[in-house]
Amino acid sequence: MEKVDHLGIAVASLDETLPFYTEKLGLRLIAIEEVPSEQVRVAFLDASNIKLELLEPMSQESAVAKFVEKRGQGLHHIAFGVQNINERLLEMKEQGIRMIHETPKSGAGGAQVAFMHPKSTCGVLFELCDKSKGKGE
Amino acid sequence: MEKVDHLGIAVASLDETLPFYTEKLGLRLIAIEEVPSEQVRVAFLDASNIKLELLEPMSQESAVAKFVEKRGQGLHHIAFGVQNINERLLEMKEQGIRMIHETPKSGAGGAQVAFMHPKSTCGVLFELCDKSKGKGE
Repeated sequence: MEKVDHLGIAVASLDETLPFYTEKLGLRLIAIEEVPSEQVRVAFLDASNIKLELLEPMSQESAVAKFVEKRGQGLHHIAFGVQNINERLLEMKEQGIRMIHETPKSGAGGAQVAFMHPKSTCGVLFELCDKSKGKGE
Repeated sequence: MEKVDHLGIAVASLDETLPFYTEKLGLRLIAIEEVPSEQVRVAFLDASNIKLELLEPMSQESAVAKFVEKRGQGLHHIAFGVQNINERLLEMKEQGIRMIHETPKSGAGGAQVAFMHPKSTCGVLFELCDKSKGKGE
């Protein structure tokens, strides 16, 4: 893995949580974007060496809505920045890591993303995030 | 906040989870250390731009033991690296952020640490971590 690109944080409402991050923690808001494939609206914040990604569900069908309902707001996933996500997915398969997504899907910022299944990763939801072909930073 | 120093991940057993991080994800193990004040044994892994800190409870009284029992293994906290933690604690107070620790306590690697209460932070357990006077990297 190259490095950690961002940390996903599930929230019930961006409007209600963004002021904590921008005003109290003093982090810069980079962008707000909708990701229809995941039914989330996301806000990226600049935490210097990584980004924080606040995830607000756009519908009750969103996995983030179910997460918030079950566990409350809080830490959701770690995203590793990678290049050549298709090669990485093959490596994951060789390692016996079960993926939620066997093939990459479109994420925020034009990235290609795929999530590992927490049952294969000691309980942590890890994302592979490939921005090499997208418009993301 | 200067930047994210590390991400805490609660695990039931270091012996059972370390191989996933070192062998499957290919992350380098930096050190394993006991933190008696928190009743945890921690393993730091090098994720390039940040560190991952696996936290294994040393007793049933450890907050991490209660976390694992209630929520299972998984993401536990985000630690911001800071300097002058006492000044930062005053700033937190001025911002109305409730702290779990009103004064710094000894953490891993000789750091001085203090945690914000998740009720003040939209559900995320944030740590302030000051290594400027310690032996930690």
